[in-house]
Amino acid sequence: MKGGVVDDTGRALSGVSLPTEASRGQEFGLERMCETIRVATRAAGLGMEQIAAIGVATPGTMDIHAGIILDPPNLKPWQNVPVRDHIHGVFKVPTAFQNDANAAACGEAWVGAGRNTRSLVLFTLGTGIGGGVVLDGQVLTGAHSHGAELGHVKIEMTQPRRCGCGRWGCLEAYASAISVVKRAQEALARDGGVSSLHREREELSARAIFDHAAQGDGLAAQIVEETAYYLAVGATNAMHSFDPDMVVYGGGMIAAGPAFLGRIRYHVSEMAFPVLVEKTEIRYAELGSDAGFIGAAACARHLLRQLSRS
Amino acid sequence: MKGGVVDDTGRALSGVSLPTEASRGQEFGLERMCETIRVATRAAGLGMEQIAAIGVATPGTMDIHAGIILDPPNLKPWQNVPVRDHIHGVFKVPTAFQNDANAAACGEAWVGAGRNTRSLVLFTLGTGIGGGVVLDGQVLTGAHSHGAELGHVKIEMTQPRRCGCGRWGCLEAYASAISVVKRAQEALARDGGVSSLHREREELSARAIFDHAAQGDGLAAQIVEETAYYLAVGATNAMHSFDPDMVVYGGGMIAAGPAFLGRIRYHVSEMAFPVLVEKTEIRYAELGSDAGFIGAAACARHLLRQLSRS
Repeated sequence: MKGGVVDDTGRALSGVSLPTEASRGQEFGLERMCETIRVATRAAGLGMEQIAAIGVATPGTMDIHAGIILDPPNLKPWQNVPVRDHIHGVFKVPTAFQNDANAAACGEAWVGAGRNTRSLVLFTLGTGIGGGVVLDGQVLTGAHSHGAELGHVKIEMTQPRRCGCGRWGCLEAYASAISVVKRAQEALARDGGVSSLHREREELSARAIFDHAAQGDGLAAQIVEETAYYLAVGATNAMHSFDPDMVVYGGGMIAAGPAFLGRIRYHVSEMAFPVLVEKTEIRYAELGSDAGFIGAAACARHLLRQLSRS
Repeated sequence: MKGGVVDDTGRALSGVSLPTEASRGQEFGLERMCETIRVATRAAGLGMEQIAAIGVATPGTMDIHAGIILDPPNLKPWQNVPVRDHIHGVFKVPTAFQNDANAAACGEAWVGAGRNTRSLVLFTLGTGIGGGVVLDGQVLTGAHSHGAELGHVKIEMTQPRRCGCGRWGCLEAYASAISVVKRAQEALARDGGVSSLHREREELSARAIFDHAAQGDGLAAQIVEETAYYLAVGATNAMHSFDPDMVVYGGGMIAAGPAFLGRIRYHVSEMAFPVLVEKTEIRYAELGSDAGFIGAAACARHLLRQLSRS
């Protein structure tokens, strides 16, 4: 569980990390959240009375309007947890609650890659693929808290891969870190033993595949190139749906660096409408591992502004 | 060119149609637009001084913020036409300008299928496939006037069909009226002569294919069923992107009736997240052939409200 204090200019005054220990259950988890907030506040040299608002961002299925975690995939004993009301009850300050990828998009739009834009689409490239969309300064939550599930846009019908969500042909089934490894394993099974990746076959990681590609391994390079293509299909679909100022990629995979981003841009230029190719910026996220709590703070700040207007 | 007077409750007080005669050029076209507005006003028994605002909706590429038609596909001599300023200059009332599918979405959200919703996604099923999105009562125009180009979301990579836009694998290349006919022609070329559609092969229309399917022709029924599946892929992608209250289908193809809508719903139920399957309404548009000018009026009304707030 990460937490930090962020000032009104988007600067992180502290950043702390506490173990979630999900198996110890909801009550423990909620107290651990409160503890993370207290520790982050102390680490910034502040007292709780100096905290204007709190933002909480979590993964998994949730009812964002109600402030409830419904059924988080990696926090199994948790279910129907009224996170927002609990945090608000403990600290007595306005508390925002948001999906983690949506929050990260708010953070990037506030002080990250999209700080000079009105609208952006964020893809978070990790174990899975998350999405967050900000339009005219407003995060897209969706009518049922499922806005911007961009990893689950279907991009293939004829030979669709099975996705972790149980469906077929989702972007995530092609371009998440897990899918990159799976595609490499399949290619290695067909490969005559030439690829340098064979040495790492037992414990293959997306990172290793990108590294071997950078070192000139043909099979790894092919997997990376296809990944750029799949991500470009996702970007093109987002551009033809939302038409944002900017498409932003965050998450572990952006360690692949500028060449990989260049290949995504190339494939987008082959697929998207010319005016969008010309005008839509495609960039990496800038907030790194602080994106989560800076984004949550962006949501809290947005809530404060809403409250001050009403 | 269609026009009508719409009152503040969304009721059409008149509806008229004048030939566009696109080949006569821009100046003629702009005057024809003005004439359509005058004729529609007279047909409603009103004088121009009783018109509070004007909405204009056109197809093709445009700069919506600037109020300019850039390069309309079916109005070839037209280019860079400052439609909004011209109409405003002639009639001296607030004038809204919008893409036709976006306007139709505004109309359906105002007094059509989505009148009780906050957000909807509209697919217009005609020669091509258009898209319009309304989120929290605001139409999605996009940063570059290309929001909601939902016919050009890519749904196939392995064997992508060529789209009218020049790209590959777009939804429109599978489920527009032209694509339905093309797929049927291909199926007939493979068919041993059993299908009743062979009789109409020279002048095949999407309407004929749906009719033959309804009368029990197996090949036609297969084409129709696949069309429902493709449209469901498009709907699922829109649901996982925008998460609207409602997905609405408009355009000529909805003459296919409730059974076709039922098949779209069935395929969506197989592909979308369960909570969205349960909660997202999927319906046909209700404004029929008046959708265009009622939608344009919705945009004009929205503009009036913005002006009265600022």
